Amino acid sequence: MNEVLKTMATRYSCRSFTGEQVELEKLEAIALAAVQAPSAMNRQPWKIIVIKDKALLDEMDASIMEKLSQSEDKTMYERMQSRGGKLFYNAPVMFVVAKQKNTELDTGIVTENIALAATSLGLGNVICGMARMIFETDKGDYFKEQIIPEGYELGMSVLVGYPTSNEGTPHPADTSKITYIG
Amino acid sequence: MNEVLKTMATRYSCRSFTGEQVELEKLEAIALAAVQAPSAMNRQPWKIIVIKDKALLDEMDASIMEKLSQSEDKTMYERMQSRGGKLFYNAPVMFVVAKQKNTELDTGIVTENIALAATSLGLGNVICGMARMIFETDKGDYFKEQIIPEGYELGMSVLVGYPTSNEGTPHPADTSKITYIG
Repeated sequence: MNEVLKTMATRYSCRSFTGEQVELEKLEAIALAAVQAPSAMNRQPWKIIVIKDKALLDEMDASIMEKLSQSEDKTMYERMQSRGGKLFYNAPVMFVVAKQKNTELDTGIVTENIALAATSLGLGNVICGMARMIFETDKGDYFKEQIIPEGYELGMSVLVGYPTSNEGTPHPADTSKITYIG
Repeated sequence: MNEVLKTMATRYSCRSFTGEQVELEKLEAIALAAVQAPSAMNRQPWKIIVIKDKALLDEMDASIMEKLSQSEDKTMYERMQSRGGKLFYNAPVMFVVAKQKNTELDTGIVTENIALAATSLGLGNVICGMARMIFETDKGDYFKEQIIPEGYELGMSVLVGYPTSNEGTPHPADTSKITYIG
């Protein structure tokens, strides 16, 4: 099994980070991998925003947790509390894929490049759809103005950092989903 | 640069295949990489269909070319004729990602795993959105019945095979799309 196949086989959703900042050259390598992603007609309908300001990430995290604590249904709040009370799992970096309208498939391709590039560099990572809650908080407009370029919207985010444990368990692959014709 | 980053940097859209069939173990490795892809809430809202019946692929190809030749606007037909007259570029294999509704982002993630896995195995590949034209031909229903499982729809396809040339040129990466915060 080559390194690429091995990286895909071992990638897992990391939900506990040390918080230690990641070296800039690693972040640059991941961001470069992101913009090398293929897209329909090579339109590249996205931008990559690398948030490595831990104070800003913590502010966003606290803002969402506050909102969750006030919602009628406390299920999500309690689940996050049981996982350490941090929605972003103490990750020091968030890669945001900002996208143009109706380009979800292209966004998925970029997202996977980010996740695999991070894994290949020994970094924990998790694709984090919950990040869109940032913009639903009281400070939503303030965060959006800082993060999302004009004419774009949030596509997806990937949290990246050093994992607290060297062991992560990938989901078992379901080969029953594969069919051959011919 | 590690093998994963190198594979992302060198992947390109291959538009000329020898037609030589790909070894089954390589197809199995790519299909396994596909079903190892992450998905929202691990719902895995897709199935992978590996079409390695070259006669079926040629039949689909000819069917689309016929339709294009009859359309009022001949631009696409002439472009494909100038590229060798084959919409699928003589590829011996098509990986089809069949998806559930509204799961474009998850489909993009799987698609990239297929493209990168194929590249890592020395195979040419191209993400082929035009494959959806298969279902718009006169034989559309007949093809759909063979390929797309009940309850699913075409997500994306990736053509895979041995390239006629060892040299492929990736699109230049646009690092101006990257912004750092912090």
